[in-house]
Amino acid sequence: MIRIGICGYGNLGKGVEAACLLSEDIELVGIFTRRDPNGLKSEKNIAIYSINDLSEFENEIDVLILCGGSATDLPKQTKEYVKQFNVVDSFDTHADIFKHYQAVQENAMKFHKVAVISTGWDPGLFSLNRILMESVLPQGMEYTFWGKGVSQGHSDAIRRIPGVLDARQYTIPKEKALEAVRSGNNPNLSVRDKHLRECYVVLEETADPKLVEETIKNMPNYFADYDTYVHFISLEELNAKHKGIPHGGFVIRTGKTSEGVHHKLEFNLELDSNPEFTGSVLVAYARACYRLALEKNYGCKTVFDIAPKYLSIKNYEDLLKHTL
Amino acid sequence: MIRIGICGYGNLGKGVEAACLLSEDIELVGIFTRRDPNGLKSEKNIAIYSINDLSEFENEIDVLILCGGSATDLPKQTKEYVKQFNVVDSFDTHADIFKHYQAVQENAMKFHKVAVISTGWDPGLFSLNRILMESVLPQGMEYTFWGKGVSQGHSDAIRRIPGVLDARQYTIPKEKALEAVRSGNNPNLSVRDKHLRECYVVLEETADPKLVEETIKNMPNYFADYDTYVHFISLEELNAKHKGIPHGGFVIRTGKTSEGVHHKLEFNLELDSNPEFTGSVLVAYARACYRLALEKNYGCKTVFDIAPKYLSIKNYEDLLKHTL
Repeated sequence: MIRIGICGYGNLGKGVEAACLLSEDIELVGIFTRRDPNGLKSEKNIAIYSINDLSEFENEIDVLILCGGSATDLPKQTKEYVKQFNVVDSFDTHADIFKHYQAVQENAMKFHKVAVISTGWDPGLFSLNRILMESVLPQGMEYTFWGKGVSQGHSDAIRRIPGVLDARQYTIPKEKALEAVRSGNNPNLSVRDKHLRECYVVLEETADPKLVEETIKNMPNYFADYDTYVHFISLEELNAKHKGIPHGGFVIRTGKTSEGVHHKLEFNLELDSNPEFTGSVLVAYARACYRLALEKNYGCKTVFDIAPKYLSIKNYEDLLKHTL
Repeated sequence: MIRIGICGYGNLGKGVEAACLLSEDIELVGIFTRRDPNGLKSEKNIAIYSINDLSEFENEIDVLILCGGSATDLPKQTKEYVKQFNVVDSFDTHADIFKHYQAVQENAMKFHKVAVISTGWDPGLFSLNRILMESVLPQGMEYTFWGKGVSQGHSDAIRRIPGVLDARQYTIPKEKALEAVRSGNNPNLSVRDKHLRECYVVLEETADPKLVEETIKNMPNYFADYDTYVHFISLEELNAKHKGIPHGGFVIRTGKTSEGVHHKLEFNLELDSNPEFTGSVLVAYARACYRLALEKNYGCKTVFDIAPKYLSIKNYEDLLKHTL
């Protein structure tokens, strides 16, 4: 059994908890939180501890899955916890991944641990498909689309507008752009061409809908460059229809191997729950992390470093007979 | 530069040749054939040698790509040539892969070489997606569909019927089955439910169309279990419209991470030329084969053993900065 600890008990921590219970080779040792553990209860009856007690579990945990945020938690936590634990994180600030890698690599090597960073579905499964597709079809172009799914950052941005009680924002890939990409014509697509943004907004009683709508649509970076649609709904409707956290996306590469000979490769996802699926990916990579540590293959790893067999619960002979 | 030799100069050998010319880090040393090399010319101006001269190239070739057939060539060739060369093959008789693996593994270890077997797109990229999908979504069901594409074996079977001058058979996944799978309802699909077979047949002048059609439709294993459609066309039309070798397919897995929380993962391909794309995959795995040999990581490998970074021409820092 692979003994797992979860660090952070927000949406992602709960997703990892659910995923651990689906894998027969995983034992969930405990959940570690910054909050008062006495005020918290796991629906799945898993022990909850204070994050301050983590170091006492050095010999009880094979892999610690870090479920904090990429903005402030993981840049500090991963490089610190890798001094004591093999760790997995879902650090997803693309521009800072290399810096994060270097910091984690230094400590992983020094303390003889394995860290798997930036896994999940993007980065993670999408990255894996990107490297695969560009390797087997070097003459081509590749596109990533996200959605249909909830963007937490965009939802928060709307919530900060005066007069807004609650909001939920969906990022939606444009069908016309997907078609243009699949056709193999290598279209040049602007930000506006690729995705649209749909906003469901609950107003305070005194708010001016016109003003809120204009404020949303003109918000730089978040909405101004997109076709943005604003729907005002009641709090009841928001809670009834828009409390899920679905997501998804597409990686598509088209290219040619000789004159006039075209190919199209596509990977896509439709997820009812972004944190539950991301958690499930983290658990598969925790299995790989554990096995690499057994082989003393220490250091900071990404999905690019990990042979697929390390992810599977099946033995190699079974894989060759039934999955290959 | 990675120095590649091609063994076998049929459709697949030509596909590998085309793919080698697209990769900046590949040098194509020569093509080796059982036929008289004097009667053959490479359109790309690559040297063609007799297969009997292969052993003279032991120090000139880093990886030998074996482009023979799975029925009789590869079961003999891979385990023999791995005594002298690092090799890559596309052995695709699923039921015999494990036996093939064992035979190749023994010699690869004994002679300190790397063999990558059973790569291409199925087995190969499809296998990779299967292991990935079942690892990240253990509670689920998975389906593979093939097509729309030409089946050489089924086309040959039709050609052997008396009165048939030429024929081409397309395997086509049924849209209704794809939809049922994508819905997440885990349908039980029969052979007939999943694919249909479309046959384009050129008759000899004296042949009886009715009789030929019945013979095709009742052929056990090949056609009897399928909805089979037979179209009689002229030789001119066959040559004009049906001489390409397109293929494609789908790997779809649906499953859940907790009650009522469903997910769908899909990988699909549309290929203008099956041998050119397969050749392109073989070349990417030849790059990995070469690098594993440099690391003295000897033995028989499959796509399950190979970390994605070994497939890419990019360096690791670039990959982390731009592909992850």
